[in-house]
Amino acid sequence: MSPAALSYLHSPSSVAVIGASDDPDKIGGRPIAFMQRFGFKGTILPVNPSRATVQGLPAYPDVASLPMVPDVALIAVPGEAAIQAVHACTERGVQGAVIMASGFGETGRPEDLERQQRMVSEARSAGMRIVGPNSQGLANFGTGTILSFSTMFVEQEPMDGPIGIVSQSGAMCSIPYGLLRRRGLGVRYVHGTGNDADLGVGDIAEAVLDDPDIRLLLLYLEDIRDPGALERTAQKALEREIPVVAMMGGRSADGRRAAASHTGALANEQRVVDAFFKRTGIWRARTMAGLVDTAHLYLQDWRPRGRRLAIVSNSGAICVLGADAAADADLSVTTFEAATTDALTEVLPAFATKTNPIDITAALLTDSSLFGKVLPLLAADRSVDACFIGVPVAGKGYDVARFATDAAAFAQRDNMPVVVAAPQENVAAAFRDAGLVVFDDEASAIAALGQYLHHHELMDATRRLGPLQTRRGMPANDAAVLSEAAGLAFLQAHGIEAVGAILCGEPQAAAEAFRSLGGQPVALKGCPTGATHKSELGLVRLKVATAADVEAAATDMIATMSRLGIEHEGVLVAPMIAGVTEGLVGAHVDPVFGPVILVGAGGKYVEALDDVEVLVPPFDAETAEAAIRRLRIAPLLAGVRGEPATDVAAWAQAAVALGSMMLADPSVLSVDVNPLMVGAAVGEPAFGAIAVDAVVVRR
Amino acid sequence: MSPAALSYLHSPSSVAVIGASDDPDKIGGRPIAFMQRFGFKGTILPVNPSRATVQGLPAYPDVASLPMVPDVALIAVPGEAAIQAVHACTERGVQGAVIMASGFGETGRPEDLERQQRMVSEARSAGMRIVGPNSQGLANFGTGTILSFSTMFVEQEPMDGPIGIVSQSGAMCSIPYGLLRRRGLGVRYVHGTGNDADLGVGDIAEAVLDDPDIRLLLLYLEDIRDPGALERTAQKALEREIPVVAMMGGRSADGRRAAASHTGALANEQRVVDAFFKRTGIWRARTMAGLVDTAHLYLQDWRPRGRRLAIVSNSGAICVLGADAAADADLSVTTFEAATTDALTEVLPAFATKTNPIDITAALLTDSSLFGKVLPLLAADRSVDACFIGVPVAGKGYDVARFATDAAAFAQRDNMPVVVAAPQENVAAAFRDAGLVVFDDEASAIAALGQYLHHHELMDATRRLGPLQTRRGMPANDAAVLSEAAGLAFLQAHGIEAVGAILCGEPQAAAEAFRSLGGQPVALKGCPTGATHKSELGLVRLKVATAADVEAAATDMIATMSRLGIEHEGVLVAPMIAGVTEGLVGAHVDPVFGPVILVGAGGKYVEALDDVEVLVPPFDAETAEAAIRRLRIAPLLAGVRGEPATDVAAWAQAAVALGSMMLADPSVLSVDVNPLMVGAAVGEPAFGAIAVDAVVVRR
Repeated sequence: MSPAALSYLHSPSSVAVIGASDDPDKIGGRPIAFMQRFGFKGTILPVNPSRATVQGLPAYPDVASLPMVPDVALIAVPGEAAIQAVHACTERGVQGAVIMASGFGETGRPEDLERQQRMVSEARSAGMRIVGPNSQGLANFGTGTILSFSTMFVEQEPMDGPIGIVSQSGAMCSIPYGLLRRRGLGVRYVHGTGNDADLGVGDIAEAVLDDPDIRLLLLYLEDIRDPGALERTAQKALEREIPVVAMMGGRSADGRRAAASHTGALANEQRVVDAFFKRTGIWRARTMAGLVDTAHLYLQDWRPRGRRLAIVSNSGAICVLGADAAADADLSVTTFEAATTDALTEVLPAFATKTNPIDITAALLTDSSLFGKVLPLLAADRSVDACFIGVPVAGKGYDVARFATDAAAFAQRDNMPVVVAAPQENVAAAFRDAGLVVFDDEASAIAALGQYLHHHELMDATRRLGPLQTRRGMPANDAAVLSEAAGLAFLQAHGIEAVGAILCGEPQAAAEAFRSLGGQPVALKGCPTGATHKSELGLVRLKVATAADVEAAATDMIATMSRLGIEHEGVLVAPMIAGVTEGLVGAHVDPVFGPVILVGAGGKYVEALDDVEVLVPPFDAETAEAAIRRLRIAPLLAGVRGEPATDVAAWAQAAVALGSMMLADPSVLSVDVNPLMVGAAVGEPAFGAIAVDAVVVRR
Repeated sequence: MSPAALSYLHSPSSVAVIGASDDPDKIGGRPIAFMQRFGFKGTILPVNPSRATVQGLPAYPDVASLPMVPDVALIAVPGEAAIQAVHACTERGVQGAVIMASGFGETGRPEDLERQQRMVSEARSAGMRIVGPNSQGLANFGTGTILSFSTMFVEQEPMDGPIGIVSQSGAMCSIPYGLLRRRGLGVRYVHGTGNDADLGVGDIAEAVLDDPDIRLLLLYLEDIRDPGALERTAQKALEREIPVVAMMGGRSADGRRAAASHTGALANEQRVVDAFFKRTGIWRARTMAGLVDTAHLYLQDWRPRGRRLAIVSNSGAICVLGADAAADADLSVTTFEAATTDALTEVLPAFATKTNPIDITAALLTDSSLFGKVLPLLAADRSVDACFIGVPVAGKGYDVARFATDAAAFAQRDNMPVVVAAPQENVAAAFRDAGLVVFDDEASAIAALGQYLHHHELMDATRRLGPLQTRRGMPANDAAVLSEAAGLAFLQAHGIEAVGAILCGEPQAAAEAFRSLGGQPVALKGCPTGATHKSELGLVRLKVATAADVEAAATDMIATMSRLGIEHEGVLVAPMIAGVTEGLVGAHVDPVFGPVILVGAGGKYVEALDDVEVLVPPFDAETAEAAIRRLRIAPLLAGVRGEPATDVAAWAQAAVALGSMMLADPSVLSVDVNPLMVGAAVGEPAFGAIAVDAVVVRR
């Protein structure tokens, strides 16, 4: 399906409203009132068996009597009547229907879900697409196609604009709409998709992106069942340089429980969701602020270069708090070029601060030109990527209009990302009127700027990595664990260095293997063909130092396995390998998102300490290295207490190879390498990264 | 000094304004205009050598000519003139002066600091106290004593109320004042103290607490030089059950750098500051939201019992997001008592959710009584400590006034802490008018509620621990490191179990000690009298297993120390002790705050991994245990992979003992115990917590 095929949802030439009401405050009345009020140019066809006219329009008793085949039907009747309406629409050849009725899949009752599936199947067989059921409806203020009953359109006057909102929840399309409108921003699409039984948020969002006027896409989700549509949306948005911000309810365990009980939402694994969004360039907002506060920034024409921040204020305290907020937002407080500080010394009074943050001081009261003098110097400084301006107090005696003009020139002429904090309403209004993005306080301002700059970095990184290559829907019921010998060989064959373990069927062969490895102490392990807790059964012996000990231990292990009836291949003899760091790489197939790769701190406490990052393949070494450097053990990787730095590049390369393998070989269900012994970046041990244990599960 | 002695600052019978201006927008004019406008009942005495009247009041050429001795002088002249004015005031016996002039200590130039110190010394010798210099001034809207030139009082109409703000920064008293006023809250005190050269934020804050009408105290600081005054303030506030919220700029390294360069702020160690605030019951706000968003909650008459939250909304999505926000704010989404769920089943429609979060659903539109039916059930449920109500969308068709009345009864009659999120302005207004605390979105609402509930818990904990007992201002220049033998003995004598190490002067004695310990493998260490890197010099040998090996190793160690000229006491022979967890306890004397205690993860990577919590003594075992359970290694302490749980109680007790010792013995400068071997809570090893290494530094 090409999303352009959904254009009838956004600009139909005719709309049937089934269950049309003469009362503009009823579900079946609102859309008609809205379309008449907000300039819908097509034909509205009210369907109501008991009225000749509805809100001044001729009404029809049923779908069969309609004088034309409507492009789209809005089904505002409940329960069984909705199902009948779907049937009637398919008979007439309607292309799409928006179904508002609830009581379907969202109840969590199997019979309701089944009714929903039957309804959708009938529609799909007839070539009709469905939005909903349980949908608040779709609204397009560009064409006045308001197939929605949102109360918010009554409360907060619409204004067309470059923002699209697509949400599974009605409330969560209406609330961002309301908050954006209160901030003076125009919103074109306000879509509440409901149960996503046929068309989902991803499909509808993709269709929204067909509109060349859209410059920002906001999504709200409670689960992801079909990542493919979201992926296509993200890819298309990236091509058009449109930022996509998604909020997903159920970040917490209690939130997921609530989502499951309220809407039957699928419990996606949240860190896989995070990794998926990151991989596709979608910014995941944690709160409403992340969804709406940054919107105005996204609509600016800047092309941000980095995250180095300049801070300017007429209050020293705001300079300090601005620097704190920058740290919270992971922005660096830049060090100016020497020429800048020299030039600042020329223009600022003696007691002002000429380094970053710049405290203009109360001198601003007597010299209104100071902003105008300082900001161009920052524009010329290549160490400055963005700027925060804090004007905590101004008013009578201050030339606020001039400050605003100077700041606007900086943001527009100099193309500098700028946020302003002004807690006084009249000061804020002056800056806002000049076109600037203004917040109440420095923390909100800099948090929003941080999201904006980080998101642009993320979009650049996603562009670099290219599109996802997915394999999904893997059944895991015929899984088999490879023996350790086979697992290590498998890794070695797929570009992940594995320890040179020698498989020995007999104790004597083990002693021989020991000698062939140079007579150094070795690791000896039993090699069952399937999964076994080797340590607990005494099937792991480290630092075995003589051929006799090796032979004796091998004899014991083989005897143990035989006694316990454990099918085995013999024993493995491997050189002892000690890394600078014991890392972990792993992979598994998420039931929704397909293969994911883990990098983390290795060792026996992996589960409890959970120092792990998740990546969606394919990704490059730079991405993997960045993930490794986000681990809590990262401070150790540079080398502490005289130890060498860890070879993070080799570790990252192992993760990249694992990612490629998982995409290339659909038979692999999971891989656990713990520990991955990682050597020194410079100096000894120089072996890179070597898997010394491996559990590989294949179909 | 009793703070009551500062009452002249808040309700003087007469005020001299030195540098009085006829222009109400000049620094010397504003306070006169403000006092006339905001109801000051005392006598205003303008001092201006060139005018007969100022703003309609008789003016005087100098301080000497004043017809009476003013209680307080406002010094609005700059630089040297300010110093002369101080002199003139001391001559007349003025009790206190507020100095607005800048160019003193805040410049960071030694000569300016010296001028400031001379000025203060002169005032103090004459018995006059000083606020400032570089002060925006003090404002008391209860008495109309506005000794301040804040522009914000022009921009945002004052209203008297139960809130006091005391800030080192002028901007940071004006901004919270403005934001609180915009939220409709009344503010009595708006104090910008400036350089705190004599009276500091703590002193002024303590004086504010003498006002029986004050119910909330907000502070802004950039450094803490005198924790004593803050401590007294905190103690007094606790007695009166007044919450104190402090924001301190310079949380980040860049922020501290900015504070130092703008105001010469002292670089307090931030986690000691955190521990100090925590210990005194002061809530540290990280952002402006933490300072002002919770204010309205603090002014309610609730007595919160705990942190178990009920969530009620007419939107499923808001239920989900509310649960996520609760997790962010460390509030638990409570499980209702069975009777509550039964009763909810009676009153709610079939498709509504009767567990927490409660989704009333769109049924609210047709049955406006639902809030009124649900909320009393929650009031009766002992598992509910607080409630969040989310009304994302309402309007025409909804009986919002009734929802608001029902919610207000719940909050007021049932004494239930309640926050409301309503993004629609008219809905928010209805709830606000009913006396409820309303936010735009669930994240802000629940974050504020979280701060409120956590802060009440903190105040209760502080009450339990009682006042601080401090020893401060410790010179560390005559420090000496105890030998390990002496350090272990010192710990043992002060209630911290130490390993039974035997000090042996001769190798033969070491062999004898080995035998006396039962012939088990021992740890052998050289015992220099001072600080030495023992491991690097081969002065640590673990698991030495025979008497002959012990003797040989002791011989080596003694030879090494002698060869290197290291003064020593011989060698230590100690049993090998393996804990379930290697912990750390430590202590040092902070130059500002006095003794602080550390608990953390032990081992060789302590500095790099920095998994440490700081506590200010005295504290109890409950406090120490809670700190240990905040460590990143906490998930391991319950016992993982079949290991026993760690004896956290014994570990906590060692920290408590260390805290008592640090307070009792001012000769101790620092203690480092790493590792503190901690045994099993149940089962073996059952030794509690034993220090196996100790570095003790004493004067």
